[in-house]
Amino acid sequence: METVRIALMGAGTVGSALAELLPGHRARFAALGLEVELARVLVRDPSKSRPGIPAGLLTDNPEGFLDDVDVLVEVAGGTTLAGDLVLQALEMGLPVVTANKALLAERWDELRPHAEEGNLYYEASVMAGTPILGALQSLWGNQTLEMHGIVNGTCSYLIRRMEEGASYDEAFQEAKSLGYLEADPNLDVGGIDSAHKICVLGRLTVDPGLSWEKVMHRTRGIQHLTPELLQKARAEGYAIKLVASLFPEQGEWVAAVRPVRLPESHPLVTLGSGRNALVYKGDPVGPLVFAGAGAGGGVTASAVLGDLYRALLGLPGHQPVPSAAPVPAQAAEPFEEV
Amino acid sequence: METVRIALMGAGTVGSALAELLPGHRARFAALGLEVELARVLVRDPSKSRPGIPAGLLTDNPEGFLDDVDVLVEVAGGTTLAGDLVLQALEMGLPVVTANKALLAERWDELRPHAEEGNLYYEASVMAGTPILGALQSLWGNQTLEMHGIVNGTCSYLIRRMEEGASYDEAFQEAKSLGYLEADPNLDVGGIDSAHKICVLGRLTVDPGLSWEKVMHRTRGIQHLTPELLQKARAEGYAIKLVASLFPEQGEWVAAVRPVRLPESHPLVTLGSGRNALVYKGDPVGPLVFAGAGAGGGVTASAVLGDLYRALLGLPGHQPVPSAAPVPAQAAEPFEEV
Repeated sequence: METVRIALMGAGTVGSALAELLPGHRARFAALGLEVELARVLVRDPSKSRPGIPAGLLTDNPEGFLDDVDVLVEVAGGTTLAGDLVLQALEMGLPVVTANKALLAERWDELRPHAEEGNLYYEASVMAGTPILGALQSLWGNQTLEMHGIVNGTCSYLIRRMEEGASYDEAFQEAKSLGYLEADPNLDVGGIDSAHKICVLGRLTVDPGLSWEKVMHRTRGIQHLTPELLQKARAEGYAIKLVASLFPEQGEWVAAVRPVRLPESHPLVTLGSGRNALVYKGDPVGPLVFAGAGAGGGVTASAVLGDLYRALLGLPGHQPVPSAAPVPAQAAEPFEEV
Repeated sequence: METVRIALMGAGTVGSALAELLPGHRARFAALGLEVELARVLVRDPSKSRPGIPAGLLTDNPEGFLDDVDVLVEVAGGTTLAGDLVLQALEMGLPVVTANKALLAERWDELRPHAEEGNLYYEASVMAGTPILGALQSLWGNQTLEMHGIVNGTCSYLIRRMEEGASYDEAFQEAKSLGYLEADPNLDVGGIDSAHKICVLGRLTVDPGLSWEKVMHRTRGIQHLTPELLQKARAEGYAIKLVASLFPEQGEWVAAVRPVRLPESHPLVTLGSGRNALVYKGDPVGPLVFAGAGAGGGVTASAVLGDLYRALLGLPGHQPVPSAAPVPAQAAEPFEEV
């Protein structure tokens, strides 16, 4: 039996859920000759108790955090300390599993060579447990035409509550008290979380060098939406949704995030309520639809654990598309921006 | 530039479509330092012309077919000659890309060691271009609970036509004249094609040794359905569909194929008309939905080409689940069999 030692960065909802999932997989790891254990857990406040994690493993000291471990799992978020530790681990040759879409989107130039070598595993970074990265990696035989997703559940919640008549501020306060909002709520309502995600997906499908700055430049949030606007759209047979899209425009790939009007029969509407959903269109495959839960500690941890299996079995991580795809002439689905 | 030589077995709709797709990917392969060419193409009748394939490459001689090639692409179907050539290539250490679900289902004992080594690529074998294998491979962090799919478009077509009032025989003759039926139509209407596919999916998710004989034993087709039965179900708010399922039963994983009554609001009904669809339920991820075209030459060839990219880049093929998953106690979705 080979012992595998995990350095876990972050013990919030996802980190705690992962720690709680691991014991249930002990027998399956044992069947592979592996005993998986948490070596240490890096947190901001080691005095706070964390479900499923022995207090003795908690530390707030990044020095020596990676000593004698076999893999880094990073579910802390943020682009500074998390990014530095992820890069340190990768440079040491450790596989890294991360759920951190902000880091992937914003520090890609540093991460990309390691991703191309197959050392970076990030299924959990987009649509949480819905295995969209695994799916998109199988589509390189297509000419990608366009891709549209609802990838931020918090915005979907706010929009639904406003459709039911709540004001933006009421809906926002509800989401806050339910724990749905990021520490910086602008990540959600400003569309930035969605922008991070479409940026990650774009690099897996059309351009391994897709620029985060360009995506940010085309990102708008939902702060200007009102119950009146949403209800008027519904009365006309449309639903307004915050959609992250990738499409061709004047010979370039564009990734953009903005609220759009969708016909109520569109799969992003029929499937998207209370879950994430994504439509991919390629030639020759045609339209594909993926949907599932896009948030939640356990849901996200399931994708982290799936990546951990792959890392421990020596299977490669998530590879960006190997070369930039041609930009099609076809116009994108003509959504009306709101 | 490295030249990669493909041995292509089969030049029917999928093989011809692949040959027609390849030139459009020349630049992308070149960016990876690869020049991909067809070395030779094995067919039953080399005198017949095949779109996109120079006549000089056609041969009906399996002797020497694998000489001096780098990869075998098998899209001929059948379990005898195709199986022998696939195994011969694998034993020579060649990567093999195949769309052949019958072969995978029925000769798994011989293929499994090569699949576990990562030398076998078979995204095209289930749901054609819809990347269900890539998706399911990312779900090992879940306890699988159940899985239900509409994975045979021909049966969906026959059922739709009978709902519209055609008799079984009329619908069957239409499907035949449209080229929708396999050479042996019992593969479609007897549920065997669906059984092949759920068998492949079950090995990727819950049991790498799932027995084909047991799946066959639980397989029923649609030959007993009538317009009256289908229309009565619709009048009651249900749709009858041929569903391939994987679920726990008395402490064992069972894979089964049979027509069932589904509520009209079920995602397999709302998404399944004219396309393949699959619902996966796992803990903690919850329900996931995948849908897309499940047949067609180009659609299937896109998955073959995607696999070819992965094989040529040295990325591993489709791995069965690394160890058998525990069988959950939860009862499966209680579909009513018809």
